Amino acid sequence: MPGRPALFIPGPTNMPDAVRRAMDVALEDHRSPDFPAFTLGLFQDLKKVFKTRNGQAFIFPASGTGGWEAAITNTLSPGDKVLAARIGQFSHLWIDLCQRHGLDVDAVDVEWGEGTPVERFAEKLAADTKRQIKAVLVCHNETATGVTSDVAAVRKAMDAVGHPALLYVDGVSSVASIDFRMDEWDVDLAVAGSQKGFMLPPRLALVAASPKALEAARTPKCARCFFDFADMTRTNKDGYFPYTPATTLLRGLRASLDLLLAEGLENVFDRHHRLAEGVRKAVAAWELKLCAKQPRWYSDTVSAIRVPDGFDANEVVKIAYHRYGLSLGVGLSKVAGKVFRIGHLGDLNELMVLTALAGSEMALRDAGIPLALGSGVAAAQEHFRQTAHALDVARAA
Amino acid sequence: MPGRPALFIPGPTNMPDAVRRAMDVALEDHRSPDFPAFTLGLFQDLKKVFKTRNGQAFIFPASGTGGWEAAITNTLSPGDKVLAARIGQFSHLWIDLCQRHGLDVDAVDVEWGEGTPVERFAEKLAADTKRQIKAVLVCHNETATGVTSDVAAVRKAMDAVGHPALLYVDGVSSVASIDFRMDEWDVDLAVAGSQKGFMLPPRLALVAASPKALEAARTPKCARCFFDFADMTRTNKDGYFPYTPATTLLRGLRASLDLLLAEGLENVFDRHHRLAEGVRKAVAAWELKLCAKQPRWYSDTVSAIRVPDGFDANEVVKIAYHRYGLSLGVGLSKVAGKVFRIGHLGDLNELMVLTALAGSEMALRDAGIPLALGSGVAAAQEHFRQTAHALDVARAA
Amino acid sequence: MPGRPALFIPGPTNMPDAVRRAMDVALEDHRSPDFPAFTLGLFQDLKKVFKTRNGQAFIFPASGTGGWEAAITNTLSPGDKVLAARIGQFSHLWIDLCQRHGLDVDAVDVEWGEGTPVERFAEKLAADTKRQIKAVLVCHNETATGVTSDVAAVRKAMDAVGHPALLYVDGVSSVASIDFRMDEWDVDLAVAGSQKGFMLPPRLALVAASPKALEAARTPKCARCFFDFADMTRTNKDGYFPYTPATTLLRGLRASLDLLLAEGLENVFDRHHRLAEGVRKAVAAWELKLCAKQPRWYSDTVSAIRVPDGFDANEVVKIAYHRYGLSLGVGLSKVAGKVFRIGHLGDLNELMVLTALAGSEMALRDAGIPLALGSGVAAAQEHFRQTAHALDVARAA
Amino acid sequence: MPGRPALFIPGPTNMPDAVRRAMDVALEDHRSPDFPAFTLGLFQDLKKVFKTRNGQAFIFPASGTGGWEAAITNTLSPGDKVLAARIGQFSHLWIDLCQRHGLDVDAVDVEWGEGTPVERFAEKLAADTKRQIKAVLVCHNETATGVTSDVAAVRKAMDAVGHPALLYVDGVSSVASIDFRMDEWDVDLAVAGSQKGFMLPPRLALVAASPKALEAARTPKCARCFFDFADMTRTNKDGYFPYTPATTLLRGLRASLDLLLAEGLENVFDRHHRLAEGVRKAVAAWELKLCAKQPRWYSDTVSAIRVPDGFDANEVVKIAYHRYGLSLGVGLSKVAGKVFRIGHLGDLNELMVLTALAGSEMALRDAGIPLALGSGVAAAQEHFRQTAHALDVARAA
Repeated sequence: MPGRPALFIPGPTNMPDAVRRAMDVALEDHRSPDFPAFTLGLFQDLKKVFKTRNGQAFIFPASGTGGWEAAITNTLSPGDKVLAARIGQFSHLWIDLCQRHGLDVDAVDVEWGEGTPVERFAEKLAADTKRQIKAVLVCHNETATGVTSDVAAVRKAMDAVGHPALLYVDGVSSVASIDFRMDEWDVDLAVAGSQKGFMLPPRLALVAASPKALEAARTPKCARCFFDFADMTRTNKDGYFPYTPATTLLRGLRASLDLLLAEGLENVFDRHHRLAEGVRKAVAAWELKLCAKQPRWYSDTVSAIRVPDGFDANEVVKIAYHRYGLSLGVGLSKVAGKVFRIGHLGDLNELMVLTALAGSEMALRDAGIPLALGSGVAAAQEHFRQTAHALDVARAA
Repeated sequence: MPGRPALFIPGPTNMPDAVRRAMDVALEDHRSPDFPAFTLGLFQDLKKVFKTRNGQAFIFPASGTGGWEAAITNTLSPGDKVLAARIGQFSHLWIDLCQRHGLDVDAVDVEWGEGTPVERFAEKLAADTKRQIKAVLVCHNETATGVTSDVAAVRKAMDAVGHPALLYVDGVSSVASIDFRMDEWDVDLAVAGSQKGFMLPPRLALVAASPKALEAARTPKCARCFFDFADMTRTNKDGYFPYTPATTLLRGLRASLDLLLAEGLENVFDRHHRLAEGVRKAVAAWELKLCAKQPRWYSDTVSAIRVPDGFDANEVVKIAYHRYGLSLGVGLSKVAGKVFRIGHLGDLNELMVLTALAGSEMALRDAGIPLALGSGVAAAQEHFRQTAHALDVARAA
Repeated sequence: MPGRPALFIPGPTNMPDAVRRAMDVALEDHRSPDFPAFTLGLFQDLKKVFKTRNGQAFIFPASGTGGWEAAITNTLSPGDKVLAARIGQFSHLWIDLCQRHGLDVDAVDVEWGEGTPVERFAEKLAADTKRQIKAVLVCHNETATGVTSDVAAVRKAMDAVGHPALLYVDGVSSVASIDFRMDEWDVDLAVAGSQKGFMLPPRLALVAASPKALEAARTPKCARCFFDFADMTRTNKDGYFPYTPATTLLRGLRASLDLLLAEGLENVFDRHHRLAEGVRKAVAAWELKLCAKQPRWYSDTVSAIRVPDGFDANEVVKIAYHRYGLSLGVGLSKVAGKVFRIGHLGDLNELMVLTALAGSEMALRDAGIPLALGSGVAAAQEHFRQTAHALDVARAA
Repeated sequence: MPGRPALFIPGPTNMPDAVRRAMDVALEDHRSPDFPAFTLGLFQDLKKVFKTRNGQAFIFPASGTGGWEAAITNTLSPGDKVLAARIGQFSHLWIDLCQRHGLDVDAVDVEWGEGTPVERFAEKLAADTKRQIKAVLVCHNETATGVTSDVAAVRKAMDAVGHPALLYVDGVSSVASIDFRMDEWDVDLAVAGSQKGFMLPPRLALVAASPKALEAARTPKCARCFFDFADMTRTNKDGYFPYTPATTLLRGLRASLDLLLAEGLENVFDRHHRLAEGVRKAVAAWELKLCAKQPRWYSDTVSAIRVPDGFDANEVVKIAYHRYGLSLGVGLSKVAGKVFRIGHLGDLNELMVLTALAGSEMALRDAGIPLALGSGVAAAQEHFRQTAHALDVARAA
């Protein structure tokens, strides 16, 4: 099909040219004397993106799933009790991973579209007077439902009862796009992936661990080798890796970090919020509903949009792909066929969002769903125009 | 500015990934024994795009201006009489080039927005009983005004009086995008550029010459060396070039020709027409007017759109660029400030056109021009949806 | 430093332009309807490179270490007895990995420079009348010492006593460079990495499993999730992956497989042997010794070269890097400072090998080691010239 | 053929990765408001490479031939008398170009292998009491014979008799590789090409003109349009171009200038000299002769090497290409079959030169020419080793 494909799944995202080119290099010697000068800066800047001064950053040549596994296996032992919530497909999969490693997961089910149930967590933590819960898992942004949970509130609930469990956060689709504050929220293990806000190909699991988490990792836990923190720590401190690292991707990470820090993390978050608001204005104009049940859970990186009863969301996604070259996300598991998803994260601007909306409108109409063509686009345009002035002022300042 | 810039000037156009990658190669030996096997195919396929079997194709490492110069200097002598029309900035510049080479140009002026005046040409050709006119120049697609001229009609007018002048066509923004038929229309010299329908960087002048033109080139004409046909012919026949050719661009040309021929030239033309119609539907919905005065002159590769009196089109272009990252074309010379231009040629699809329209709408409104946001987008969407079905059927067939 | 760096470590290797460009693409939707048409062919062709018809190929977004872990954790349970040999640093690390997963490894130590001790293995297998040994590990090519082991002989030893253990092969630096025959040698689990013979960046673990291995994997084994065979099998059969795959690397793998199969695996092996012989002729001319103790163990992908007593091999490597831009491999662990390594695998030809030899000669001399400049180069040149004729004939045929 | 091809023709040269990647960008709007900020710096830095403060730099999207044409047609009129020497194929072609533009060339013939005959020039200039000679042409580095002429001496000869002619220098294969001093030598027009010392693809003609040359260009001269200085000057001063410029190549030029200025021009020249000396040591070791007749003419960018009588140099080039993937330059015109050429310019280091020498040795021997394998390599190695220490010291300083 002629023309550039339009990629609006919630990751992989659109890679900036600067990142693409940074990775288009010859292979290099990962044991060369010059290598550490390059890698040591990566760890430093990665910590800035996680907003941690005290923690340690790890770079695994794996996917987000690998990041989850690294966080879990280094710090927990088979049989350990874990508190988690199943708020969508990805939080479900993390729970499944824990169970495969022999952990005893207390998985709280909520209706998909809701965030992590802070009050239920608070009750359970208070009730756990024997401190059997060793880990509390929070999916910061559930990519399947477009729901952002309140990590700070979970921390507050833990602190309220002085619970010593470690706090684990899946930030795969939030870190570098939605404000995440590792130190301030006292998060112990945070996991991000390269193919979302970092605007890189999918292949790096970025993990941050607090001093408390690192302390926990010192005693024998789950079996692991590829994902071992200690091997990494021992070699990373000199700028090397325990096995051949993904050198080209590390070069891309350098470019990614440069872009993020040059724009400024707060500006990156504001931009994501502004663009996400445009999408939500469009959804409202279409008279459709988000999967996320309340505004406080609206995600600034992905919107899962419900199609009216009687329609098949998969049909919308198929038409968008085959007829207009637009990749949208399908609904997964419990919401399969009920929602389609627009990813609006990474290297994105107003016109790109309008492209996704214009294409979605056509696909929705082609699938028989009634809405006025151009209505969502117009609502988003209006929002972008109104907020552009403030932006101009800010940019000029 | 984050996100991908939106390039909608009438050339350079959006380069397909396959073309970009084809050029991302090491430099090579242009005198190697393997080189001819590669280059000879280029000339063959280039002729297909010009729709000529009888003619010869030339590849100069220069811009379209260089292509004009090659066509003129190889076949005309100082003092030769040339018939041309000044229908916009680019036809004006070609006339200027002829004059610099000492040609005696009879330049017919028309209001910008009109095409080549076939009747005036017919009169002048009929009146030229001494056959002093050696060359008739037609700008197939005037990029400054978005006007397509009727080349076949000019040929008909020449044939009607049996006029032996050579017929020159500037196809820089038409060849490979708008139907051009060198042999059928008996065109003697046709000039194309790499950065328009060929979707390449600006640096190749592609010229085709008829047997009659090549015959004319055998006797001394204007002074030239870099643009000499004979040097090219002598070396090209064995697959080489008289001086170092633009090897990486030739690799890109291979990819470009592969894409054009795989899609099929007629499909390429249909696609351009369909997408251009979408733009025109939007312009109508905005209640604005094209610079092109009549539908028969509407260009399928570029639309020059008039802003209402009292507004400055340059302001629209500036806002689009600075606020939304959208590159539109400014008005040139006589229509400066009066029109802005949307280029809709090359590697383009529906969503890309909608992006340009959505961005233009915001910029127009920001510049104070009254129109309903989303209106142009909706009109184009409706057109694309209605024509998509026919396309699906055709693709499936 | 001006000029192209010379990369001659035993992986990552020199990436062909075709592979580099194949990966230089936009990110894509790994759940798109078109994706399986692309991925299913990868698995098919990957099996050809492993020379297996019966087995199944897996592609993990990890390093070779991850490949080892996948092979082990899917098919063995904590406490299982494993027979292995510590013939160099990488076989040592694989043993270490097994131990971390709770396996009971019977690790046979040999002097570094020797291959897997087939006779010792035969004795132990014969002695294991209770069939407690569940796994036999062979490092086909030990990258640390430049030693190739005889996998077929180990299989023969197992068959001689009808031992039912699974046979595991580390083919990270052999598969796609040195003849490896999964089905013929009845190998159960084979592991390769992308950054060696596959000429790709380091990030794909390529694993092949026999039907017997897959059968073993059906019952609960070591804890795992990221490296789980079953998740892969369930999704791979439709062309998808259980988590976001390394899409750009998969595009590169396509190009790599195309190159390997176009050259022909046997030709690839012959080329590696011929080039390796050139290196060995040079080493002989320098009057130095390989780490590999006997010709039957000489590796066709990497040569570990001993420096004379009293000299520091690390010094040679440092000079080569800093003064001549040549990356050689250092000696690891037991042979640190005693050997330096030349990697001669992947996308390589005669002139590239001569470059490594010419640079090594200068560095060796600069480090004070006596040898005649040009002597190794001349020996390799002579070998390449003598064998070039046969090659010309073969190519012409 | 597997492995990287070895490119050692005297241009195009080996492109550094940084330059390649700088050009691997999306197409851009050459009329955007941001464009001048980028282009104006190019002109400034280009002047540094030409070593001119007073002159003006031009960038034409053409080859070196186009650069010659620009220099000539803007400053001379048909019938003007030109003094030049035919010292090789490229100086011959420049003379031919002048003649095609109607200039009256007094072409002094010398034996190929000699430089511009300064004394003959001095006599002719002295004899030209009517000052009919308007232009003196010097080929700074004749690529066909590997001969560098003494530009300063020609200027001295002109000054000695106070001759007012303009001094033209073909610096295509010298500028950015061999010391060239536009202002100090009072050169009026200098021409360079992108594909030599600038390490770029062939497609930019880089021209510098002195104030005196620009003054000459103000009155009507040869017919021209594409190569017109005035059009360039008018638009360049604001950072734009009269027609679509080669944007991607301009991005590459930025990277090239950055590399040259970061290394330091004097270091670049020293490096070329040191590497060229290595080649010459090898030629001596082979007991062959250079085409250049005297050391004062030896070129630091290209060596034309004579094969012994009775042998065909083309055969050597063919064998090198087909058997070893090594591109050498053939002999042109008068020295066809008698010499082969090694280009040693651009992004080059010691190991790359040794590669070319090692390959040449094999090809020479395969062609039956007697020499000791490794002998040239050893001679160059010895030279590189001896001079490396001084370099280390300089680098450390």
